[in-house]
Amino acid sequence: MPRLVTAYSNPLIRQARDLREKRHRRESGRFLAEGLRILTEARESGRIPRVLFFTSATAAHPLVIRLIGAVESAGGEAIETTPDILSKLSGKDNPGAVIGVFDEFGPTLDELDRNAASIWLVAERLRDPGNLGTILRTGDAVGAGGLILIGECVDPFSVEAVRASMGALFTVPVVRCEWDAFVGWLRRGPGQLVGLSLDTDEDYRTARYDEPTFLLTGNEAQGLPEDYAALCDLLVKIPMLGRADSLNAAVATAVMAYEVLAQRRA
Amino acid sequence: MPRLVTAYSNPLIRQARDLREKRHRRESGRFLAEGLRILTEARESGRIPRVLFFTSATAAHPLVIRLIGAVESAGGEAIETTPDILSKLSGKDNPGAVIGVFDEFGPTLDELDRNAASIWLVAERLRDPGNLGTILRTGDAVGAGGLILIGECVDPFSVEAVRASMGALFTVPVVRCEWDAFVGWLRRGPGQLVGLSLDTDEDYRTARYDEPTFLLTGNEAQGLPEDYAALCDLLVKIPMLGRADSLNAAVATAVMAYEVLAQRRA
Repeated sequence: MPRLVTAYSNPLIRQARDLREKRHRRESGRFLAEGLRILTEARESGRIPRVLFFTSATAAHPLVIRLIGAVESAGGEAIETTPDILSKLSGKDNPGAVIGVFDEFGPTLDELDRNAASIWLVAERLRDPGNLGTILRTGDAVGAGGLILIGECVDPFSVEAVRASMGALFTVPVVRCEWDAFVGWLRRGPGQLVGLSLDTDEDYRTARYDEPTFLLTGNEAQGLPEDYAALCDLLVKIPMLGRADSLNAAVATAVMAYEVLAQRRA
Repeated sequence: MPRLVTAYSNPLIRQARDLREKRHRRESGRFLAEGLRILTEARESGRIPRVLFFTSATAAHPLVIRLIGAVESAGGEAIETTPDILSKLSGKDNPGAVIGVFDEFGPTLDELDRNAASIWLVAERLRDPGNLGTILRTGDAVGAGGLILIGECVDPFSVEAVRASMGALFTVPVVRCEWDAFVGWLRRGPGQLVGLSLDTDEDYRTARYDEPTFLLTGNEAQGLPEDYAALCDLLVKIPMLGRADSLNAAVATAVMAYEVLAQRRA
């Protein structure tokens, strides 16, 4: 049976609230996700929260009832709380109907089956959590095998990244590794590494992509380092007709990924 | 000559700080933009700040010197201030080198020349300032004639939208209007209204786009209202292979816009 917790000082509430900070996520290996749709996506993907928070206003919703059942079956805690506390956990005035505390997860490079998908997304030193979440959401849409994060990237389990992913964090595998480890792994099997670059005449639209394609997007401000670009099998550019010399990183990744997908479908 | 202002209580500082809030932007008709690159983009596009803030650390940069010259020639104020105050104006720990106070601007529908560009972007009830700025940035890249904002959209002059646009706010015209006014204007001349929808079998990649194309993106959570979709000349869908049923609004707009651009280039 769900417990009722109405004190902000309750340790479960405080521990959940702390997960908004990276330090606490790292220490505990847990993170927050919010919203009925995202938590239902998680449940259907086999990810059940350790702790689930909801309010009396939503307790009777069929999807909340299913979430409570899943949490309790898995030995977790379902906690009814106040709208005010839910809002504090969320950091938003209008929080979602539910908030869950999840264990972090994610495969290693060696656990990936590169032949399981024809498109893979790779990002290096990605700084913006919204971009990371949006790239995951695009990855879900194009059927990407996963997102490989190279070097010092923003935390994929941050509240903003989870939110922007709209649930794709639970469906698209995320691997964090260093460049050397990635390249070492990549070269032990098939895979075309395609980098997005300003220093090439190869148009992304006329280039041909081999399976599996690994689409590499560089840091938002600096793009790809030269030595990374040098190790790519193919560098392509997206035409820029205006005054700016670059697209948003999540937009560039999506334009590329949909071109590769279109070639696969053709 | 630039003035030195080091007191946070100075009226110019307080007025600039207030522009972070929509209410003050509406009252004054002014907004903030930050960063040497964005302000230089603005200057080259003929937009000169009314007030320019910089610090001694950057006063000698050639682009800052040019900005100061432009502001003073235009009768504005160039103000040297402290890193701490610049940080407070910015809302970031590491602010850009300069912050400017600009007059809001933007044409009306009737001032647009629809034949001046072959792609136009239209968004209705866009809620997220990051999406709005990112769509402007994409608009610049594909050579869009402008962005038409329908109904209750987020403020294009908000700090977050200006930042995400990376300067495109100054190069891509933005019109704000109601749906009826937009449709009335659109139908008085050539223009294909293309809506992104889930309720169509028409693939965005095989559809054919007439010039000028007006790409219509709906609200982030709800998509296009049915009666808006009914007035489109063409509804297209972007394939979704995963579990999610929609892309981020800025991503969807970009995937569509680059497809239209590719057909123009072919």
